[in-house]
Amino acid sequence: MNIVIIGSGNVAYHLSKAFTQQDIPISQIFGRNDEKLQGISEELGIPYSTHQLAEADLYLIAVSDHAIEEVSELIKNPEALVAHTSGSLPREMLKGPYRKACFYPLQTFSLHQDLDYRKIPFFLEAENENDLDLLTTLASSISDNVMESSYEKRKYIHLTAVFACNFVNHLFARAQEISNSQEIPFSYFLPLIHETVDKINTLPPKDAQTGPAVRNDFRVLQLHEKLLKGTPLEIYKTLNQSIKEMYEL
Amino acid sequence: MNIVIIGSGNVAYHLSKAFTQQDIPISQIFGRNDEKLQGISEELGIPYSTHQLAEADLYLIAVSDHAIEEVSELIKNPEALVAHTSGSLPREMLKGPYRKACFYPLQTFSLHQDLDYRKIPFFLEAENENDLDLLTTLASSISDNVMESSYEKRKYIHLTAVFACNFVNHLFARAQEISNSQEIPFSYFLPLIHETVDKINTLPPKDAQTGPAVRNDFRVLQLHEKLLKGTPLEIYKTLNQSIKEMYEL
Repeated sequence: MNIVIIGSGNVAYHLSKAFTQQDIPISQIFGRNDEKLQGISEELGIPYSTHQLAEADLYLIAVSDHAIEEVSELIKNPEALVAHTSGSLPREMLKGPYRKACFYPLQTFSLHQDLDYRKIPFFLEAENENDLDLLTTLASSISDNVMESSYEKRKYIHLTAVFACNFVNHLFARAQEISNSQEIPFSYFLPLIHETVDKINTLPPKDAQTGPAVRNDFRVLQLHEKLLKGTPLEIYKTLNQSIKEMYEL
Repeated sequence: MNIVIIGSGNVAYHLSKAFTQQDIPISQIFGRNDEKLQGISEELGIPYSTHQLAEADLYLIAVSDHAIEEVSELIKNPEALVAHTSGSLPREMLKGPYRKACFYPLQTFSLHQDLDYRKIPFFLEAENENDLDLLTTLASSISDNVMESSYEKRKYIHLTAVFACNFVNHLFARAQEISNSQEIPFSYFLPLIHETVDKINTLPPKDAQTGPAVRNDFRVLQLHEKLLKGTPLEIYKTLNQSIKEMYEL
């Protein structure tokens, strides 16, 4: 089976690397950014092109959400299987005469950050059982966490990730604002943050909750509210209310 | 110098262990729970008592916030230095004729979880320079992150920890609610969560922000709002609003 990966960003790079490490040959990596493609090509020994898309049985489109539709129109082969790697778009965003699929890795990719690919969950969607089997075999060669997922389900996966990652990072940013305001190095909080996150490897987060809200500690809650104003105060009240509701306090 | 640790919980255990590992002798560990004290005593080779508090130069009170005042009244020696280990209480909670201090380790302690004590920040407060020097020397023997901190500052440290840890854990709990509702194993999100947290070791969280709000992606924001209701929707709106405000979107 000939596989072509389209894209020159972090997802395209890490997918290419993961397949190469498993001796699964990639026929071509195709994109617009000559310099990036050349770098990937040299590191991984994969041919690349910026202008001539190779024929393939499977195309994996690993580009930004807004570019998927345009890129998908470059593929003309009705015998091909084409999958995008987006968490938030339906298969039908792909525009062409071929079979459509989704091959979504749930991870945040940075160029120079090594990842354990076997732990990355892959959520797959296809038009028929054959294609799903093929993508499952392919994803399973690099990961131990492969599951089928409808677009409907993928929406909730993305939403969960927003709560567990995007919002969590924003709370770190707001926390850093507070510590900076008192000239307390934010690095001092990193051991506590890592310990908090390590706990949920073994304990459901609902059972690991600590802090003044779940203790119903009015003294500390009132003290904190006096230290805050504006949007951080809104966050403080909203999240404490949510904690009280979850534990029926 | 004779040191006595009061308490039989996780903080008392880990402090005792950290000092013992550095060959700093603890004269006694004192508390109410015979079974727990016996376990700590046997593991670390420290004498213990539930009824006869030993004479000491320094007492470290590592008990729950609500028990500190009562326990502090047991100490009668006017020559002693007495420190509690709470993040949210002033030194003046200690009731006795002795010199008062605070010896606050910023970490969440679990009994069976090994910790790298050298990374734990200690925030210290004392009545005079001599006592502060003594506590600094002591804390520095187990940790590389020791700093003085007024009660005023300690309040903000605690508040920062609520945002960066208690609220973060609650977002994990809400995220798990969402994934459970779709029968998606929450364990699938752990690699992404760990990667999100690892990023802030090297990048300020404000620079690491991703997701629909910071991209100003109306399509996804609207789609998500339709999937949520009640308190989770309130959280979603409040945190997106906060992100937009932080990045002036």
